[in-house]
Amino acid sequence: MPKRFSPQEYAQGVLSGNRIMLSRAITLVESTLPSDRELAHQVMEQVLPHAGKSVRIGITGVPGVGKSTFIEAFGNYLLAQHGKRLAVLAVDPTSQRTGGSILGDKTRMETLSTQPNAYIRPSAAGKTLGGVARSTRESILLCEAAGFDVIFVETVGVGQSETAVHEMVDFFLLLMLAGAGDELQGIKKGIMEMADAIAITKADGQNLHQATSAQAEYQSALHLFPLGPSGWSPKVTLCSAYERTGLSTVWGAIEEYVALTRQNGYFYRRRQEQNLHWLKQTIRQSLEEMFYQSPVVKDQWPALSQEVIAGRKSPFAAASELLARASGQGLF
Amino acid sequence: MPKRFSPQEYAQGVLSGNRIMLSRAITLVESTLPSDRELAHQVMEQVLPHAGKSVRIGITGVPGVGKSTFIEAFGNYLLAQHGKRLAVLAVDPTSQRTGGSILGDKTRMETLSTQPNAYIRPSAAGKTLGGVARSTRESILLCEAAGFDVIFVETVGVGQSETAVHEMVDFFLLLMLAGAGDELQGIKKGIMEMADAIAITKADGQNLHQATSAQAEYQSALHLFPLGPSGWSPKVTLCSAYERTGLSTVWGAIEEYVALTRQNGYFYRRRQEQNLHWLKQTIRQSLEEMFYQSPVVKDQWPALSQEVIAGRKSPFAAASELLARASGQGLF
Repeated sequence: MPKRFSPQEYAQGVLSGNRIMLSRAITLVESTLPSDRELAHQVMEQVLPHAGKSVRIGITGVPGVGKSTFIEAFGNYLLAQHGKRLAVLAVDPTSQRTGGSILGDKTRMETLSTQPNAYIRPSAAGKTLGGVARSTRESILLCEAAGFDVIFVETVGVGQSETAVHEMVDFFLLLMLAGAGDELQGIKKGIMEMADAIAITKADGQNLHQATSAQAEYQSALHLFPLGPSGWSPKVTLCSAYERTGLSTVWGAIEEYVALTRQNGYFYRRRQEQNLHWLKQTIRQSLEEMFYQSPVVKDQWPALSQEVIAGRKSPFAAASELLARASGQGLF
Repeated sequence: MPKRFSPQEYAQGVLSGNRIMLSRAITLVESTLPSDRELAHQVMEQVLPHAGKSVRIGITGVPGVGKSTFIEAFGNYLLAQHGKRLAVLAVDPTSQRTGGSILGDKTRMETLSTQPNAYIRPSAAGKTLGGVARSTRESILLCEAAGFDVIFVETVGVGQSETAVHEMVDFFLLLMLAGAGDELQGIKKGIMEMADAIAITKADGQNLHQATSAQAEYQSALHLFPLGPSGWSPKVTLCSAYERTGLSTVWGAIEEYVALTRQNGYFYRRRQEQNLHWLKQTIRQSLEEMFYQSPVVKDQWPALSQEVIAGRKSPFAAASELLARASGQGLF
């Protein structure tokens, strides 16, 4: 077991902006050991009053869309042009299976990772989505307490993790390629409706014409969706990490969104809703884990669920049987 | 308490197509009394082998879109032109609050409700979404066992119920009005992405031109979404219940969808996934109910959740506190 510190040591290290202590604190919140969880809760209590002062931006897009290249260019732009301090986190519970495609290889962000005002943390691999979501959310708060004022949360755009990321950020940015063929883009249904902005990447050279017509097409599609409670109508922008164009437009959209939602109160309301969401979500996951891990359920699940799937037993009858047996044994 | 029969009496009555026994069986599955639930499970076990042979169609759209008028015209068309036997159910857990807008007033479907081959059942009002979803799903199976080969499940298109309906039907039809202004239509985000077809209603007279351009617009928007696992690409059609036009096009799309998905196996796979979904969903709802109704949680929830919402306490720390206290008392 790696060395552990006192809650005060972690908290003071993080608050002083010590990057090594920040990394250690993130390692702590990533741990699932019960003693580490208890320690992590104490650290989080201490840093919470100092967190919350960043703009949290979710960035998603399928592999091939140029996500790392975009993040590198956009990150460097924010550092150089706006004097921002940037932390980049990732949610990728499947990275072990897919070979660590997200942030696994820091060299993909070579120039950004060497900047003193940028902090890049690869996703802890091989955990469940619930676990990764929890530790990412706590990492956001730790980075904020360490003084980072822009947080990127990267995700891969093909699985369940986008919904989790959407629930932990202020602004959700979807990267798309023009003309890749919509079916080929593999974006999951529902993701487009979560986007506060779509940035069409690689909008340069011969791609530019196609990107411009994709922009019009997506913009008109987004207008078909009703305005959400934020009062914001999603923007579609063009950018090229290669030519470093369009980055200020993306940032402009984010700033405009933040100004609007801070003014109408949605920014704060949404963060409160997200806090409540994570409370309920954690309770739900824990209850289900207790249930499905109980010996009686583990024993009867394979046969019973097969009966239900095949339509020979009603799902409602099967559920009440399982629940009665599990409660009867006082297992949960 | 209303009169109850034996499981055999219910099952035989339903299987023989006796409408009075069908209605009584539906009343039974709508009951939340533990003794009724037990009896209902026994009835369902007996009818299950005879269920499943219908096409289940979800129909949604906001109030004002002309849903009842469409269902009446479309239903009569299916009876007269295709010799179908049609059951119409509704999922509307809020109907008590909104004044029973769905199927509450059978006179809205005057001609359909008097047809011997049509069975219209208003939604049981005032229950939770979980409860209404369960009883509607069991009612579908009962109607199938009674020989109905097309089932409509109507919902109101503004709440959470569409997701529930989407999980219990084979085909999801969204009714839209042309030119009502997208914001005014009030369709919830995500619903458009669930649609297997959009029918633009009231496409007649002076509306026809506007409806035709809306059709093109929606069709191109739907093409931006990737193809789902069904292999089906959603259609946008025009119809007029008043002029009785476009009904055959809607039915043609449904038949085409069913033929495609039966052939590629998605139709059956999806029903199996839906069975499993309802098993897990029921377990989740029961676990949460047990937790949130336990005295210790009821007692501590208001203060603790307020701390979390305000950002003074981490959601994860609060969740583990509550879970520890509830388990410690053996309450769940």
